[in-house]
Amino acid sequence: MSADSESGTPTRSTSGPPTALTRRPTTEAAEEILGGYFPVLDHGFVSLIDYLGSDESVERAARVSYGYGTRQTSATRGLIRYLRRHRHTTPSEMVEVVLHCSMPMFVARQWIRHRTASVNEYSARYSLLPLLFYTPSSSEFGLQSSSNRQGRADDAVSEELYRESLDRWDRTRQQSSENYGWMIEEDVAREIARIDLPLSTYTQWYWKTDLHNLLHFLTLRVDPHAQWEIQEYGRVIAGMVKRLAPVSYEAWIDYQVGGDVMSRSELDALKLMVQPGAEGAGLQSGEKSMLDPDELKALGLSPREAREFVAKFEPKPVPEFDLDLSVMRTAEEVRIEMESAVPSASRGKASDGHA
Amino acid sequence: MSADSESGTPTRSTSGPPTALTRRPTTEAAEEILGGYFPVLDHGFVSLIDYLGSDESVERAARVSYGYGTRQTSATRGLIRYLRRHRHTTPSEMVEVVLHCSMPMFVARQWIRHRTASVNEYSARYSLLPLLFYTPSSSEFGLQSSSNRQGRADDAVSEELYRESLDRWDRTRQQSSENYGWMIEEDVAREIARIDLPLSTYTQWYWKTDLHNLLHFLTLRVDPHAQWEIQEYGRVIAGMVKRLAPVSYEAWIDYQVGGDVMSRSELDALKLMVQPGAEGAGLQSGEKSMLDPDELKALGLSPREAREFVAKFEPKPVPEFDLDLSVMRTAEEVRIEMESAVPSASRGKASDGHA
Amino acid sequence: MSADSESGTPTRSTSGPPTALTRRPTTEAAEEILGGYFPVLDHGFVSLIDYLGSDESVERAARVSYGYGTRQTSATRGLIRYLRRHRHTTPSEMVEVVLHCSMPMFVARQWIRHRTASVNEYSARYSLLPLLFYTPSSSEFGLQSSSNRQGRADDAVSEELYRESLDRWDRTRQQSSENYGWMIEEDVAREIARIDLPLSTYTQWYWKTDLHNLLHFLTLRVDPHAQWEIQEYGRVIAGMVKRLAPVSYEAWIDYQVGGDVMSRSELDALKLMVQPGAEGAGLQSGEKSMLDPDELKALGLSPREAREFVAKFEPKPVPEFDLDLSVMRTAEEVRIEMESAVPSASRGKASDGHA
Amino acid sequence: MSADSESGTPTRSTSGPPTALTRRPTTEAAEEILGGYFPVLDHGFVSLIDYLGSDESVERAARVSYGYGTRQTSATRGLIRYLRRHRHTTPSEMVEVVLHCSMPMFVARQWIRHRTASVNEYSARYSLLPLLFYTPSSSEFGLQSSSNRQGRADDAVSEELYRESLDRWDRTRQQSSENYGWMIEEDVAREIARIDLPLSTYTQWYWKTDLHNLLHFLTLRVDPHAQWEIQEYGRVIAGMVKRLAPVSYEAWIDYQVGGDVMSRSELDALKLMVQPGAEGAGLQSGEKSMLDPDELKALGLSPREAREFVAKFEPKPVPEFDLDLSVMRTAEEVRIEMESAVPSASRGKASDGHA
Repeated sequence: MSADSESGTPTRSTSGPPTALTRRPTTEAAEEILGGYFPVLDHGFVSLIDYLGSDESVERAARVSYGYGTRQTSATRGLIRYLRRHRHTTPSEMVEVVLHCSMPMFVARQWIRHRTASVNEYSARYSLLPLLFYTPSSSEFGLQSSSNRQGRADDAVSEELYRESLDRWDRTRQQSSENYGWMIEEDVAREIARIDLPLSTYTQWYWKTDLHNLLHFLTLRVDPHAQWEIQEYGRVIAGMVKRLAPVSYEAWIDYQVGGDVMSRSELDALKLMVQPGAEGAGLQSGEKSMLDPDELKALGLSPREAREFVAKFEPKPVPEFDLDLSVMRTAEEVRIEMESAVPSASRGKASDGHA
Repeated sequence: MSADSESGTPTRSTSGPPTALTRRPTTEAAEEILGGYFPVLDHGFVSLIDYLGSDESVERAARVSYGYGTRQTSATRGLIRYLRRHRHTTPSEMVEVVLHCSMPMFVARQWIRHRTASVNEYSARYSLLPLLFYTPSSSEFGLQSSSNRQGRADDAVSEELYRESLDRWDRTRQQSSENYGWMIEEDVAREIARIDLPLSTYTQWYWKTDLHNLLHFLTLRVDPHAQWEIQEYGRVIAGMVKRLAPVSYEAWIDYQVGGDVMSRSELDALKLMVQPGAEGAGLQSGEKSMLDPDELKALGLSPREAREFVAKFEPKPVPEFDLDLSVMRTAEEVRIEMESAVPSASRGKASDGHA
Repeated sequence: MSADSESGTPTRSTSGPPTALTRRPTTEAAEEILGGYFPVLDHGFVSLIDYLGSDESVERAARVSYGYGTRQTSATRGLIRYLRRHRHTTPSEMVEVVLHCSMPMFVARQWIRHRTASVNEYSARYSLLPLLFYTPSSSEFGLQSSSNRQGRADDAVSEELYRESLDRWDRTRQQSSENYGWMIEEDVAREIARIDLPLSTYTQWYWKTDLHNLLHFLTLRVDPHAQWEIQEYGRVIAGMVKRLAPVSYEAWIDYQVGGDVMSRSELDALKLMVQPGAEGAGLQSGEKSMLDPDELKALGLSPREAREFVAKFEPKPVPEFDLDLSVMRTAEEVRIEMESAVPSASRGKASDGHA
Repeated sequence: MSADSESGTPTRSTSGPPTALTRRPTTEAAEEILGGYFPVLDHGFVSLIDYLGSDESVERAARVSYGYGTRQTSATRGLIRYLRRHRHTTPSEMVEVVLHCSMPMFVARQWIRHRTASVNEYSARYSLLPLLFYTPSSSEFGLQSSSNRQGRADDAVSEELYRESLDRWDRTRQQSSENYGWMIEEDVAREIARIDLPLSTYTQWYWKTDLHNLLHFLTLRVDPHAQWEIQEYGRVIAGMVKRLAPVSYEAWIDYQVGGDVMSRSELDALKLMVQPGAEGAGLQSGEKSMLDPDELKALGLSPREAREFVAKFEPKPVPEFDLDLSVMRTAEEVRIEMESAVPSASRGKASDGHA
């Protein structure tokens, strides 16, 4: 491997991959962003490197048929929405995406928990790491939430506390970077030199998964309970799905992101207030016009479940995920940033010697 | 492999496995049925062969702690219900079951679609098959449903049609059995001799999976949309889960089996009829006291979705799955039935020769 | 679903999918066969429906880099061979194929055991099955092997035995077909009507997997120990891989198909006869010029292991897998054959009603 | 969750789990270590928390039979060795282990790449981390290898370089610890406070996998090419497998650890020097008594491949993995060490509130 590839980024200077003719299903809105780099957080990115299939591939698999291009959109849409509504998820495994992503290691550690995916990560045993670290902006720097044991409170944090934190981070990172550079210069094994880099250090990987598993990932990762930093990746990837498989995306928004689940007790409660209309068409009011906390408890809902139940009837904004094409960067720009953050080592530049 | 093991069933005549001392988590209600055979359909069975873990193992994994035996049931129950309600499913992967099952091949073909499981199936390339076939009873013999393209209508079928079907099945099976026996006698390769046995022929396997994947399997397979025959297996296995991990079972009944999902549009509709009570506690009627089909359509529900939505407010019986211990058979009884259904071949009784 | 799609085959009459421009990696030799149908056995087929990636994608993933088109073939080849030799398999997960296949159900049951794949199979609960059955040719009709408990002997089988078998198959299939047609005509639920079709009935599916898992599948399925019928599928698919990823294919032939494993005792034996040359370059004879069965036994090899060991030094033809493009059929031809084998039912032609 | 469980360790003071009667397969040598903690590296550990199955379970699954306790060891051994020799791996999925492990995060990041396993990791979003860091001993502190781009050289490192490295690590860790403690004290969200802890920080998890996947993990992780630190974990876990399933362990040593693969070209070369004996029994010298580098090249071996080939005939020590029971610690001892390393925070001690 040449010195050029130390940073794991490309050596080409053109603005994108060349075009070729194909008889495979092709999606214009996905081609538009193919190979472009979308910034996430302060130094991270997500790029759609390759894809396979489309909404029509989902439909064809469901029909165990092919001859794409023959169905009208309306039939495709009806079928795809039916599949998602009833959790018939296997046909959506027929779409695949390959992403090139860079994220802080603490985000990578959450991400990798999704097992049904292929991953090739930058190896810090083999290569030198770009010394890029994630710094939360002041708006994302938060106190421990008192209601959610694994999240942040919404309250603003004092400017002073944030400043002091920045200073501390700076000092740690400067020291870690210096130590790493020193050890590399002393020719200490890379796999040892890297062990004291902080979890905020950016890594990168190729990540490949299918649409079913991707939407499951996104459902969990654009959720407000996920750590804010990984949500940011989720939002960009969701914008890519919207371009690649817009009908599947819309069904996912309507049935997963914008929907909710009701337990047996919650349904029991609802049925007291709402019932099928005359002749089974439409809905009408049920026998009760209100349910107080005691009644919910009598239906089997714990205090916490009752709060969660009531909250389901509060307004809930349904997000739209759209890519901002104006921020899209070329592979070359990203490569230069990455490469210039690699400590310059005077040794260890041997070829990879696979021949 | 000796002739005894041709049928894939045991050669021991005792009533169950011997007991030993263990320091592993042990569940009495599961031990009670361990190694017992529960009949399913006319010749099938399910037997709990081995298990690992318990409700407490789920809790300990969630707490990344151990020292089981120290938490009170109430805390375990609250945590397990919380996990299931919020689809935090990884801790339930810490419980595992091993089942020995026999089912018609068309059922086996549905079952095997669940990929996250370990399977060792009886090999008809290697061994002779017991010639046992599944015959639907008259109550389960049904016409094609007109509303559900992959199901049965509820209407009764004429006695005459059922009789004629039985006769036809009998003739096919007799012929297939005779051909199989003849080919085996002529020493035709077993992997060829079996190719014209019908899909109703029983096969058997060891099947091992974890509680998370098992509950997902059961959610789909005890659902009325699953083919009735596989539902029968689901109901027996659900009864086993109830004994092995009763708290997880109860949470599954309350949040999955007895619950339902609501889409974005369905929630929008509900919020018109139901809203949080004063001060956010409890529920009260909303701005609308009824919603007719046109209003549902205006909210984005297709006619089919509207029908499905209204149906969610109809009474829905929530099943209880209990094993009937009086029908439990010994391994020995089952072995004899299987073995006596294997055609007697005068050749091919060599040892397995692995030495 | 319209009546046209009953057979699961396409409704388009053109000779293949249309072409479009793409910036994705594209392989000409794969494009050439895209959407073409290769016959397997008497009524089966395999068609490459879609693909993602190429040999260069494997290389880029290994380098966690992209900018394809910049590396010379020699470097790609050296790296890919290195990866395969050392079983670094994750980069080959970056190539994906989608196949449309039709095979007898007893073959499908072996195939589906490979779990890391996505499958959408023709549903006989939902649709009517084409009544096509597999008949072994006389050259593949064999007796039970005496040395291999799950295989066929090489000896020729009498013409008489084969004829009689054909007659018996014909009778069973005619009867099964008639019964199926009759039940469909009587409007018996399809999921019941199909239960006595023989295992030789053809089914079909979309099957999607990645190159790593595909090569593992092929290693097992082009092996002489696999049932001959599934080997036939393996050989056609291997020919497709050769076109899609020729360097990976060649490495697989050299390191898996044409290679072998040696156990600790086998290596101990070999080291007695072969040793490193002077100065560690090349090989030279060791201390022994022969090893008799007793000496092999003394080295820990059981009689069976000793036979297997010696057999590794016998000539072993290494197969080449090449597609015969002259037999490639169009989707339309295949559709017509399938469709004309579906029993004509006068009922049950409703729309799929997903709207 | 109480303050006690902050460290993810147990609150019981007894010496191990209580015993109970079970009818499940039980292995005495595994019971002996159940719940005991084996130290790895300076602060890590592995403990066998639970297990399912035994060598006999593998055999029974292969026979799709049960009635364990009836086969003699010799038959079990012959079958299990046959299965492993021929890579029939599914029966070994019938054994399962649950481990509680603690390791530095850079090791955890390598470990988690094995996807077919269940994991519940200590959450640093939710809980406070024990501030324990891994420090390589001087014997494991190495320079970058020049022959292996991702490993360490064997050469000794100067005492001075090691001392300086220790000092630098100490300073970074002290600073990181102080910053973490300060942020926790200021009530900064835990998910933010932890982002600058170094990769050498210990984490812990429950890890559950089956014997097939475990042996695959061990094959890769006790290999000298794996990072030395994860090898240490592999060696302890291999010692646990030896107790739980000794016959499977022995077969793994003989066929995987102590064996090797030969490519097509390597076999071609070998066949020139070694050939089957007269009448196919035993081996005898072939037509060549030596092969020099040029001849190996002519057979298709690249210079690197030729070196790797010759190296296969050098003496190769085959490891034995035995647990040292004298170092086994109780859960209680480990809990105390972990807990005392958690920074004492004066806030955030709320209950987990799942009720």
